[in-house]
Amino acid sequence: MRIAELSRRSGVPVPTIKYYLREGLLPAGELTSPNQARYADAHLHRLRLVRAMVEMGGLSIAAVRDVLGTLDDPEMSLHKAMGTVTAAVASPDPDVTDEVAHEQALAFVERQGWECAQDSFAFTALVDVLATAREVGQRRFVDLLDDYARACLQLAEVDLDYVLRMDSKDEALEGVVVGTVLGDAAVAALRAMARHEVSERRQDPEADPEG
Amino acid sequence: MRIAELSRRSGVPVPTIKYYLREGLLPAGELTSPNQARYADAHLHRLRLVRAMVEMGGLSIAAVRDVLGTLDDPEMSLHKAMGTVTAAVASPDPDVTDEVAHEQALAFVERQGWECAQDSFAFTALVDVLATAREVGQRRFVDLLDDYARACLQLAEVDLDYVLRMDSKDEALEGVVVGTVLGDAAVAALRAMARHEVSERRQDPEADPEG
Repeated sequence: MRIAELSRRSGVPVPTIKYYLREGLLPAGELTSPNQARYADAHLHRLRLVRAMVEMGGLSIAAVRDVLGTLDDPEMSLHKAMGTVTAAVASPDPDVTDEVAHEQALAFVERQGWECAQDSFAFTALVDVLATAREVGQRRFVDLLDDYARACLQLAEVDLDYVLRMDSKDEALEGVVVGTVLGDAAVAALRAMARHEVSERRQDPEADPEG
Repeated sequence: MRIAELSRRSGVPVPTIKYYLREGLLPAGELTSPNQARYADAHLHRLRLVRAMVEMGGLSIAAVRDVLGTLDDPEMSLHKAMGTVTAAVASPDPDVTDEVAHEQALAFVERQGWECAQDSFAFTALVDVLATAREVGQRRFVDLLDDYARACLQLAEVDLDYVLRMDSKDEALEGVVVGTVLGDAAVAALRAMARHEVSERRQDPEADPEG
């Protein structure tokens, strides 16, 4: 197909497609004349994946390039791919140096018995969250972590089952990418619905801690 | 305190504080001379809250204003506050008109027996996620929703317990804001850790669907 059709079918404007081509996020099409190229279904597929990462996951162009490198590396294991994708999606503030928050995160990880490097993106993101909670005076927020962890382990089992059920390694690697980006968005939406539901069930809207 | 000290203690640059003052996100200080104002601890607290919403939650200035309006409304119930904050945090793409995704989201909500308006932000966000999943060819992603829902109900119980334990309604309303913004970030971090953990436990890194 021509670039115009690629644009129509992917919903990505032609100038943006050209930008992705220049940045190497999309392989070049097959030249049919000096000024025209033909694109295959694989281009459309890749373009939709890039769009999902940028629009839904809010990834930078550099982060998308890292993730695509993971997908295109034949030596990549699912386990390693998961780390790369998580690092690309998470964007914690590296300047945070809240000693107390760091200790809280460390104590949490040890309590769970989780192996989590202190320089990993997930750990840094957690320290960032705890530092912000302390800063805005929500000091008891840290007490939620153990309950959160239980639910997150369940979510992780679901995610792993999802990618391990896939037919090929290529599909599974892509499942890791999509599962991380879409999974975070899906969980945020479902948490909001569930909060509404639990709040409805538990109380009359007028009932509040003061009343 | 002077604006310089407010800046130092909050970590927000003076020009940004002035911008927030102009936009009404922060009430004016008490004028001590035509060019100088004094700020109280309440300003520092509010400023840290605004910073958390902007930096951690990625909220727009307009969305922050909506949320602050909720906090300052003496008539606001916790149940209603939760809806306002969710609407401000979620930013789904309103242009998505994927009929299949819409049907999938509707079937999911009905299966769960959840009361969720089709024009709510959470529902729109879910349709958006499902449409993207279909677009990138992850058609089985929708099958994860019921398992996700179970974990999200648990998270919602934890969140509700957290705000209902608070001593005052003001504190509880702020707990809703912080719990939503920080909760989403915390869950994303913990999901990443938990996936790593489950993946380690389940398999040797070399094992993959092909191997």
